[in-house]
Amino acid sequence: MRQSYDLMFASSNKNKYNEAKEILATFNIALGFYKCELEEIQSDSLKKIASHKSQNAFSKCKCPVIIEDDGLFIDALNGFPGPYSSYVFKTIGNKGILRLTCSDRKAKFTSIISFSDEKNSSKIFEGTILGKISQKALGTGWGYDPIFIPEGETKTFAQLENKNILSHRHKSLEKFAKWFGKRVSIAR
Amino acid sequence: MRQSYDLMFASSNKNKYNEAKEILATFNIALGFYKCELEEIQSDSLKKIASHKSQNAFSKCKCPVIIEDDGLFIDALNGFPGPYSSYVFKTIGNKGILRLTCSDRKAKFTSIISFSDEKNSSKIFEGTILGKISQKALGTGWGYDPIFIPEGETKTFAQLENKNILSHRHKSLEKFAKWFGKRVSIAR
Repeated sequence: MRQSYDLMFASSNKNKYNEAKEILATFNIALGFYKCELEEIQSDSLKKIASHKSQNAFSKCKCPVIIEDDGLFIDALNGFPGPYSSYVFKTIGNKGILRLTCSDRKAKFTSIISFSDEKNSSKIFEGTILGKISQKALGTGWGYDPIFIPEGETKTFAQLENKNILSHRHKSLEKFAKWFGKRVSIAR
Repeated sequence: MRQSYDLMFASSNKNKYNEAKEILATFNIALGFYKCELEEIQSDSLKKIASHKSQNAFSKCKCPVIIEDDGLFIDALNGFPGPYSSYVFKTIGNKGILRLTCSDRKAKFTSIISFSDEKNSSKIFEGTILGKISQKALGTGWGYDPIFIPEGETKTFAQLENKNILSHRHKSLEKFAKWFGKRVSIAR
């Protein structure tokens, strides 16, 4: 393992890494970037996909590693787009989601952090934020941010300044950091 | 390999096997059923998914094997639902597809047969049928059949009696059968 990092973040997406690095830095965890294409399996379960992905990442980088996977789950659409959120965004986009969503607009964003090392086949940390789908896209932001309003808010993720503190990704990383920090302090 | 079959069809779905068996029987190919759950990867390419799947099937059954994968691709939706047709059908169904489809209704059904044995990592055969999405669901049939009208027809797949002869699955299996038959006759 490279000396200057506590563990690696495996992804093809540098922006995703930068966000995770900043959050973990607040817990004194130094996160390195391991740029790679990871094998993803098809499954209705985000946890299964994430677990397979971090095992695949560990087989490549041979050092403690996390991966992150997330999805938007809309109640009235049986959880669609769920584990296939990226593909659905690329094809039908927010316009498609708004067209599909009717009176019941309840939804949630879930982020999974999966950690793998020589001892752990995979260890899962989940962060979820409840909310609803807006009537129209508002604000400029990435992915589904312009159409998701978190519970207790009136603005979309794309309009909110404190999105990163509220986010599902922050929650899953925080859970991971608390576990990982404790684990390291025991080992030292 | 079991003596009474020329090769196996790996799937968790017996109905899919029965359809393939009947079609291949017309080419004098005896197809056995290897019931199993196969690992599927996420990809925008049906061919890549199918290729990985038949390699996975061969690693399990250790004899010449085919798998079949298919998808509905809607032009105006950038190919959605494509490789994730099963998941999309389970969640938003035909009702969702009809809601998403507007004036441009062009679509195609594609079936991929992937063959693997000790010599071939994977060999791909593609069958496609062009058509359009109907204005509403008509006829009783499985999956997207009630909303797909093949080119040159006025009825949906679910309403047509000769669906199996027209189908994308028939085309991909026919291509495979011609190749496999030739290959076997050379080897004998």
